[in-house]
Amino acid sequence: MADPWQECMDYAVTLARQAGEVVREAIKNEMNVMIKSSPADLVTATDQKIEKMLLSSIKEKYPSHSFIGEESVAAGEKSILTDSPTWIIDPIDGTTNFVHRFPFVAVSIGFTVNKKVSVKGDLERPESGRGQSMVGKWRVCSGTQKLAISKTQQNTIYITKSLLVTEFGSSRAPETVKIVLSNLEKLLCIPIHGIRGVGTAAVNMCLVAAGVADAYYEMGIHCWDMAGAGIIVTEAGGVLMDVTGGPFDLMSRRIIAANSKTLAERIAKEIQVIPLQRDDEE
Amino acid sequence: MADPWQECMDYAVTLARQAGEVVREAIKNEMNVMIKSSPADLVTATDQKIEKMLLSSIKEKYPSHSFIGEESVAAGEKSILTDSPTWIIDPIDGTTNFVHRFPFVAVSIGFTVNKKVSVKGDLERPESGRGQSMVGKWRVCSGTQKLAISKTQQNTIYITKSLLVTEFGSSRAPETVKIVLSNLEKLLCIPIHGIRGVGTAAVNMCLVAAGVADAYYEMGIHCWDMAGAGIIVTEAGGVLMDVTGGPFDLMSRRIIAANSKTLAERIAKEIQVIPLQRDDEE
Repeated sequence: MADPWQECMDYAVTLARQAGEVVREAIKNEMNVMIKSSPADLVTATDQKIEKMLLSSIKEKYPSHSFIGEESVAAGEKSILTDSPTWIIDPIDGTTNFVHRFPFVAVSIGFTVNKKVSVKGDLERPESGRGQSMVGKWRVCSGTQKLAISKTQQNTIYITKSLLVTEFGSSRAPETVKIVLSNLEKLLCIPIHGIRGVGTAAVNMCLVAAGVADAYYEMGIHCWDMAGAGIIVTEAGGVLMDVTGGPFDLMSRRIIAANSKTLAERIAKEIQVIPLQRDDEE
Repeated sequence: MADPWQECMDYAVTLARQAGEVVREAIKNEMNVMIKSSPADLVTATDQKIEKMLLSSIKEKYPSHSFIGEESVAAGEKSILTDSPTWIIDPIDGTTNFVHRFPFVAVSIGFTVNKKVSVKGDLERPESGRGQSMVGKWRVCSGTQKLAISKTQQNTIYITKSLLVTEFGSSRAPETVKIVLSNLEKLLCIPIHGIRGVGTAAVNMCLVAAGVADAYYEMGIHCWDMAGAGIIVTEAGGVLMDVTGGPFDLMSRRIIAANSKTLAERIAKEIQVIPLQRDDEE
């Protein structure tokens, strides 16, 4: 049977590409940067413009669908996930990168039906490790290799040979930064091969999906940072897990995305949880 | 007057490109990974092969020149910088990335005369923020934009708007990791916009030269990690400084590379120095 949502997926790819072009143009110009929840949580007129553009295109084509977007929520909209077909959007994942022209940003478009993230289609591997638009697909570049998680040996010494990706996050609250760094310390000293971070959750997850990083974890991000790329990880053969070791929860603001359950569980064991308000908390 | 060393610079570019091709080929194949100073300090047969290739090409063309190479030093050679024309080489800067196929590695070729790093020629901006060969030049990609450090406003609040690049380093000694993380904590909580790290000193420095990161700092690296890209930063208008705030010393194993003296000094003020054996210590 044909996938009833394939048309939405294809439309999302078209939208993400259009949005990517707006990002590419905007990055050449002066930016007006505004601050949101912390001095490290930024927004620009381009984030807002792209979200409006995506929202109006989706509403026109699918008037009955729901929508959760980073900038709409920042402007006071609620982010409650229902069973309706729902578009979950981060117009620019990696706004701080965008502001600095640090060359990693993603237009992240996720799509859920009955609260489940949905995707169909082949995943293609980027040629350059750089994504600017995605929607359960990452194919900005000309590469055609299938995405697949890394095949680092899954045995007990496995984590010692892993390369992780994560971020320091945008909170500058001293107690939060302390937990973030203490988690890094515990993981580094297992020891592991290393930790990298390119400044966007979506691209970090795609690096896991591409098999060039073994796992990504982060706390403090939002559903719009995870909905698009999370499914890319699972379609590539990886797993999503909560940082407690329980099942992944899209509205929980935390995630482990790994090449195996074993590695995800091993990371969960080391992580001290940061108390956070859920995305769907009233 | 023509630059007497221009021929060496041109030859270095040719060599770096050849080496880049070897890296590109090798990354497709299985790797035999060996451990050096720590479980996170890796080497592969490709590092050794490229260094041998570069060394033999240079010795054939310039038999009187000196040579300091990462893998030669690992094999017991001394790394003493003299006034002789000296080629300072990291065959693969970012070996851990290379092992994981994390898409950032550099072939770094530096050249010193009278202990000063030498370079001539235009710097070109990479199209993709990704470098695989460099030698006072970074022009793997097809971009032709001149490199230039970022122009973030240089005033007292400036560091709060900065994006830094650094690494956790390859030491897993608990006391070293503690200082690395404590420095990150102090910088993050100034607060600043963020910290990124792509896993190679040379590429991190080129990101500063390209103006997409405001500063890079690290301790524990070596002269071959800094000789090639350090000059790219200064030619792009940036400054190199020691982490103590004193003058940059190529053999000191530490560096701040920044878009301005003000920012470099501000970073130096926050950094606790890690005790390290110099590269030229007997």
